[in-house]
Order: sequence, then C-alpha cells, then structure tokens
Amino acid sequence: MINRPLGITMGCPVGIGPEIIIRYFQQPLEQRAYSPVVLGDPGVLMRCAVQLGAEVDIVRWRPGEKLQNRKLQVLPLSDLGDKLQWGRPTVETGRAMALYIEEAVRLINDDVLSGMVTCPIAKSALNLAGYNYPGHTEMLADLCGSHDYAMMMAGNRLRVTLVTIHVGLAEVATLLSIEKIVGLIDLTARSLRDDFGIDKPSLAVAGLNPHAGEAGMFGNEEEKIIVPALARARAAGWLVEGPFPPDTVFNKAAAGQYDAVVCMYHDQGLIPFKLLHFEDGVNVTIGLSIVRTSVDHGTAYDIAGQGKASPASLTAAVDVAVKIAANRKRFAEKR
Amino acid sequence: MINRPLGITMGCPVGIGPEIIIRYFQQPLEQRAYSPVVLGDPGVLMRCAVQLGAEVDIVRWRPGEKLQNRKLQVLPLSDLGDKLQWGRPTVETGRAMALYIEEAVRLINDDVLSGMVTCPIAKSALNLAGYNYPGHTEMLADLCGSHDYAMMMAGNRLRVTLVTIHVGLAEVATLLSIEKIVGLIDLTARSLRDDFGIDKPSLAVAGLNPHAGEAGMFGNEEEKIIVPALARARAAGWLVEGPFPPDTVFNKAAAGQYDAVVCMYHDQGLIPFKLLHFEDGVNVTIGLSIVRTSVDHGTAYDIAGQGKASPASLTAAVDVAVKIAANRKRFAEKR
Repeated sequence: MINRPLGITMGCPVGIGPEIIIRYFQQPLEQRAYSPVVLGDPGVLMRCAVQLGAEVDIVRWRPGEKLQNRKLQVLPLSDLGDKLQWGRPTVETGRAMALYIEEAVRLINDDVLSGMVTCPIAKSALNLAGYNYPGHTEMLADLCGSHDYAMMMAGNRLRVTLVTIHVGLAEVATLLSIEKIVGLIDLTARSLRDDFGIDKPSLAVAGLNPHAGEAGMFGNEEEKIIVPALARARAAGWLVEGPFPPDTVFNKAAAGQYDAVVCMYHDQGLIPFKLLHFEDGVNVTIGLSIVRTSVDHGTAYDIAGQGKASPASLTAAVDVAVKIAANRKRFAEKR
Repeated sequence: MINRPLGITMGCPVGIGPEIIIRYFQQPLEQRAYSPVVLGDPGVLMRCAVQLGAEVDIVRWRPGEKLQNRKLQVLPLSDLGDKLQWGRPTVETGRAMALYIEEAVRLINDDVLSGMVTCPIAKSALNLAGYNYPGHTEMLADLCGSHDYAMMMAGNRLRVTLVTIHVGLAEVATLLSIEKIVGLIDLTARSLRDDFGIDKPSLAVAGLNPHAGEAGMFGNEEEKIIVPALARARAAGWLVEGPFPPDTVFNKAAAGQYDAVVCMYHDQGLIPFKLLHFEDGVNVTIGLSIVRTSVDHGTAYDIAGQGKASPASLTAAVDVAVKIAANRKRFAEKR
C-alpha cells in the first residue's frame, strides 16, 4: 500500500467538483477504500454540503498533520466566500483552481502526497484567469516538465489510448505516422507494466479502416503505417497484435484477451469505452512523472449544485490512482 | 401473425450455413418460436446432422404441402452429393446457393413464403459461379427490382444504419451529402414504422467528428451537411435529433431514448453494435419489396462443419423476420 495520502484537486469551484467530492465522502469508508485529502476551498465545500443536506465532517488539514480517516480533510487554498454562483466561473475561481493544481504537484514532488486525482476544470475559466494552456493535462505536463505523455481511458473491462484526439475525422489519416503509433504503444505498454502492475502487457492495435482495410481494398494505412509500427514495437520487445478490424477488437479486449487497445482516433476508442464505462471511466495521464488520474467528465455547469452529479467516476479515479501509486512504489523498489 | 411460412436460404453449402440451420432446429420449438422452411440441399443437411451427432428430423417439402412444425422441412433445390469439402466452394456450390436465393424471391412473390432469412454466402463463390454481384444484398435488390435500399443492423438494444459502408476512413467525409443522409433517415424511419411497428419512430443522427465537431473546431461537416439534412428530414415529418457527439449517442439509444442511430461510417455504427450484439445481431435489408433478414456473420470457412458455430444470430434473424412480416401485413391491411 501507499504510505502518503492521495490529493484530490477540487477543480472548478462552481462546477460539479465540490458536489462529487461531498458525495464521495458520504460513502462509507469501506466503499471508497481510501481517504484522500482535498486541495480546495473549505467554505465552498461546506456550503455545498449544506445545500445537498449531506452530513460530512469537513476539517482543515495541513501537510504534516495526522490524517483522520473518516473526515473530509481539506488543505485550504482559497476562500472564495459565498457570493459564488454555480455554473458561473470568474477570474477568481479560475485562479483558485489553478492554485489547487500547482499545489498538488508541489506536494507530490515534496513527497507529501502520493499522487493526485483531478476534478474537472473548464479550459475557458483557466484561460480567463490568465493560464494559457490548451487544457488540464497540458498544464500538468508543463508543471512536471513531461514531454512524452498521453491519455489512457481505463475501466475494469476496457482500456484505450488514442493516436489522434481532437481533430476532424477527415484529417485523421493524414496525421498518423509510424513514430506516433510506436510512441503510443510504448507509453501504453510501460504504463500497463509500471502503473497497472501487469508483468507482460498484451496490446491490441486497431486498424484505421473498416475490416482493417481488407487487404488494401478500403484504404492502405494499415499496410503503410500500422503494420510497420507494430513491427518496430515488437522489435522493442512489446507483445502487440494487430491491426485488427475495429468493429471486433473491443469485444476481444473486453473479454480479457488484451490489456489495452491502441486506437487511431477519438471516437474509435471512446465509443466502445463510454458504452462499457459510461459512469465509472477513469482518465489516466500516462508518461507523467507523477501519478495523476482524472474523472471522465467535465464541469457540467448546467447541473452544478443540484445534487444530480454521480461520484462514480471520482470513486473509480481514486481507486485507480491508489493502485498506480502502489504499483509505481513497488516497481521502484524492485529496481 | 403471418399465415405463410418463412424461408431460410441455406447459403454456401460448404460454409457454416447448414450447421447453424441444424443447430437452430435442434432447439425446442418454444425457443425458436417459429418453424420456417429451408431452401437448400437435403443431402448436405443430413450429412451435416450426422457429423454433428444432431437428432433432427429432416423431411422434404414442396410448396402447397402441409407444414410440420417439429421437423426440418427442406425444399430440395440441389443434390450436391457427399463429395463436398467444408470450406472449399466450387462452381456447383456457387450455382446452388444462387438458386436458393432466386427461388426464395420467386416463392415470396408468389405468396408462398412470407419472407426470407439468408444464411451467409461468399462473394467470391458467387462470382466463381458466374453471378457478378458485389454481394448478397445487391443480388436480392436486383431480383426484387429495388433501387432504394439499405442495411440496418438490428438488436434488442440498438439499431444502426450507415451512410457510408465499405470505404476507407479518409474518404468518408468526401462521400457524405445532404441527399444521402436525408435518404437514409427516410429509409430508416419508414422501416421502423412499417417493419418494426413503431408508430412514431424517434431517430438520432450521429455527427461525423469528435464531439460532433464542437461548433466547427474539429471539422464542419456537421454544420454544412448533417444539420441541413436533419432540417429536411424534419420538414418531411420525421422525429429526428442530432447531430450528436458520436461517443455518447449510443448510450442514449441503448437506454431506449431513440429507436435507431443513423451513423456516418461503418465503424461508427458497427463498433457499438457488435459490442452490444456480438452473437445475436441481425442484418435487415430495409427498403426492399420483400422481407429479408440475414445473419450477422460470414461463411466462416475456417470453422465450417466443426460444430463450433452458434445459431444465435440465425435465431434472432428468424424472430426479426417473423415480426417484420407480421407488421408489414398489419400495416398493409390498415391502409
């Protein structure tokens, strides 16, 4: 097990972050398995608990203080008061949420925290506060000095990584390269080994085209790009198979034949992932120097503060982060 | 209910067609709900039953003869003898399987059969025998004189139709058009109403790009093509919503919010469909003058005759064909 607490960053103070944190700590300890500390705003959390009618014991915590398992311990990093409106981010909420993230990274690097689980932030609110990152993950990578990282969507039935992400479908084929695919196979396999503790990870790689191109009849990216990438990844020692017809590879992976599927584009991976893990999916940043998982949803401003948000993804994200931190520790000790 | 029997064409005599038919008739009558007649080769079926050690009562049947519910009734259309080898199609097997199809269409048009369920054929075997069709469905459409038809993949949780099918992913965006999408929405909605008996069918249309383009950030096909197509389909009176982010629309449809999802490309529809209906998916040819469903798998030459093939898709295809035939009859009577 890990011997330092995990940190949860509260995310956008007017999104569903505070609410799912309250809901998470309302669960009996045995269901949540672990008691992390929250980096955020105690006042916002208390107001949220009152609004939800939730009986949660919220206490302030400072690094070095003894941990109290049954309480919601918050490292106070902002005091935004009670003038905030759910769903209405401001410059102040943007600055506060950036501070939670920066402080979490600092405390992990100082060996106070074992890793972090992030609640959602809105990119627009981050930019409004003067942090010009394309997103949460890029900000974290910058703080960690990591250049070679990727997103893995992880659930207990399926794990996927994506070669291309937020680009139009028409551009996908032009953006694939042998280097990118080899790099992602490598990141994915290393994470399965070091983070997920799988000794000899087995990867499936999806084709780009229907039936994986059917011998070049519907596109030749498989032959030109994916097959050579597989050969290079195998030469590097990884167990990797493909390119598979995209419409059946996820059944194989969900049945346990593969530990992850490397996908060519956003919806190829996220359609099956969200079908199997709509509520309990976890976003893991792989290749980062620190342990970071994230909930698999956004700030959901439209329902914030209404008691509608589910803590299922946060619960799963904490569980996965604890496992990754323990595996990394074990892996580091073995070497 | 329907008052004429449904026909099952045996498909390629050396594929898994004969085997799944034997397996289908091995099931107790209450499980298969209905007793169709088979258009095929009694000798091949008998030999297959012996190989599988299956006790099935195979009898010859001719149009006009009384139906016997508990028996496997075959209209004998070939006598290929016992020199056939599983997985090795010949000119003769190709001609025979084409004849089963032609005869089924003729008997439906003569009001002897209520519809047909097709077991798989291999395109190569069909071409070898001199039938130059790109596939099974095109042959049927030609025999029926239908020009406006499409494939619907149907299961009890999800139904999908596809705007583009067997083309490389890089070409998909260039092949979309308002006309094609409107045409497919129309075919899909009519089939849901007339074939599936859904009074006011509700359709979801998937976007092409991640997050349905996120307001044009990742591609503008949604704005340029899909949104105008939706407007035209609504003006024609159909209940249709979209374009939806592809990675969440299938969850909504599987939860019952929509009766079908109109998809832009092969894997967009088939990845979620096969994840939910790997064994019991049914391929329905919509827009055809006759009732036709098909199993959702190929000839599987590699396992033919080995007792490994599941009759689940055939069972589902028969059930769906019976329902479609009954609904079309009711719909025709109402008018």
